[in-house]
Amino acid sequence: MSFDRLIDGIVKMQNPTVAGLDPKLDFIPDYIKENAYMEYGKTLEGAAAALFEFNKGLIDELYDIVPAVKPQAAYYEMYGWSGVHALQKTIAYAKSKGMFVITDGKRNDIGTTMEAYAKAHLGITDVDGEKIEAFGADALTVNGYLGTVKPVLDVCKDSDKGLFILVKTSNKSSGELQDRIFDDGKTVYRTMGDMCENWGRELPGKYGYSGVGAVVGATYPQQLGELRKTLPHTFFLVPGYGAQGGGAADVAPAFDGRGLGAIINSSRGIMCAWKKEVGIEPRNYAQAARREALRMRDEIVAYIGQIKK
Amino acid sequence: MSFDRLIDGIVKMQNPTVAGLDPKLDFIPDYIKENAYMEYGKTLEGAAAALFEFNKGLIDELYDIVPAVKPQAAYYEMYGWSGVHALQKTIAYAKSKGMFVITDGKRNDIGTTMEAYAKAHLGITDVDGEKIEAFGADALTVNGYLGTVKPVLDVCKDSDKGLFILVKTSNKSSGELQDRIFDDGKTVYRTMGDMCENWGRELPGKYGYSGVGAVVGATYPQQLGELRKTLPHTFFLVPGYGAQGGGAADVAPAFDGRGLGAIINSSRGIMCAWKKEVGIEPRNYAQAARREALRMRDEIVAYIGQIKK
Repeated sequence: MSFDRLIDGIVKMQNPTVAGLDPKLDFIPDYIKENAYMEYGKTLEGAAAALFEFNKGLIDELYDIVPAVKPQAAYYEMYGWSGVHALQKTIAYAKSKGMFVITDGKRNDIGTTMEAYAKAHLGITDVDGEKIEAFGADALTVNGYLGTVKPVLDVCKDSDKGLFILVKTSNKSSGELQDRIFDDGKTVYRTMGDMCENWGRELPGKYGYSGVGAVVGATYPQQLGELRKTLPHTFFLVPGYGAQGGGAADVAPAFDGRGLGAIINSSRGIMCAWKKEVGIEPRNYAQAARREALRMRDEIVAYIGQIKK
Repeated sequence: MSFDRLIDGIVKMQNPTVAGLDPKLDFIPDYIKENAYMEYGKTLEGAAAALFEFNKGLIDELYDIVPAVKPQAAYYEMYGWSGVHALQKTIAYAKSKGMFVITDGKRNDIGTTMEAYAKAHLGITDVDGEKIEAFGADALTVNGYLGTVKPVLDVCKDSDKGLFILVKTSNKSSGELQDRIFDDGKTVYRTMGDMCENWGRELPGKYGYSGVGAVVGATYPQQLGELRKTLPHTFFLVPGYGAQGGGAADVAPAFDGRGLGAIINSSRGIMCAWKKEVGIEPRNYAQAARREALRMRDEIVAYIGQIKK
């Protein structure tokens, strides 16, 4: 019903970051792929088995220092239904280790269909009386172009979960639509941000942040700061740190005076850390990920100070 | 690279409609579900087996009179990875019958991730040298909020496929953002429509329509007519006919003088036709769907006349 569980984890670990799990085959050490191909061949099943094994290793090394993971749905769908199976297993494994799971799916549709997405990713599916979790994530990213956030709010109310709505995305072309100005003088992203504040009233949280968050890219630090001031109850999911160019100074404006208010994502930086360490044994890829996660945590906490409740 | 194949089918069958495959368990006759539960139990696998069997029956009765199907991804994801497997099998089966398949996924993300979605749904996945189709649809619906359509265009160029971008959606709340007016006096939906025309230049087609289509709801006939005039190269996918309230008179403005320019979707109307026929044997659900599809075709063609090349 809010991001309280996520924020509890951030405070406990003193770490406002999330590890993005967007596993391309290129990121995965050969020994994992070879084992998977030996069992399933060079097939989508084989690729999916490698993805899951890679993720499992990362989660084992990260769960005690990083409060959340964010699997990106596209990189699982690329490997067909087998890839989507690996997504489901990744979510279940991360949850079994106590991590908060944000499925980055940017789902959107008209009301009745949005309800199906909300049930699929956050809620419960009813199979003629049997209640089953299809994917069971804790939060889902959502695109608000259709104005149909309500069905997701309803599922979140029932189940202590949350959603992040795209406000200002990290890509270079995000301005083409999002920076355009309406006839009332407000930009699209500000307008979408204000909608987050309104929708969020339905999912209040103990830290002052609702269960309706906003995606705001690290690559736009000025907008991050502006939105932090104007959206006091909206928690930010901040992509774009690291590989996309955002640094600790860029993300600092996303936080409030307590060091709360945002969680910063790094995907390639963490997943591919092993490729940047000289002389590392590929079997130690997850320890390299852990070192990078700690470095990132320390770099950001140096800017925002101790995180207080 | 365009919608030529889709339009070929529309002209050949004299039918500008698409059957939406959004199968909820409620829509499926009991005998299909009972068979599936007997084999897999009341599980996500059982539900997915029922979905596919239901779809297969519909496709068998529709493929010679309806040129295309549009499975809605949400209703498959609701049944987990098993449901997504049923989506993949549905796409493959419809294609084996010669139907044009539009996956309604409304996917969107930053550039590199959008590329993964495009490969997943329309293109080819590379598993260390093996080239495999993950889902293999002919077209994908896309949400343009991020301004990252380019990677989908690139995949379509390589593979004779197309995309439909959300412009003016059929839901009641679509106006909250899409009808807002920019400081240049244009609405959001008009602006997005103009982007479709621009992007479409990269995927020209022999009928004058590009491979970049637009989703425009049947529930907004005035906007349909306005957009038909201002977007001469953009083919429309029109949801909202039937169950959502749009009728043949409402969708008529979507067509040009040749009876081309749009394809009208009906989902529940076709899938649930058997529930409305008095005294029908549930085993004949697909014949009822065929009767409704023919009725819908005749109703629309009565407004637009013979469809000419």
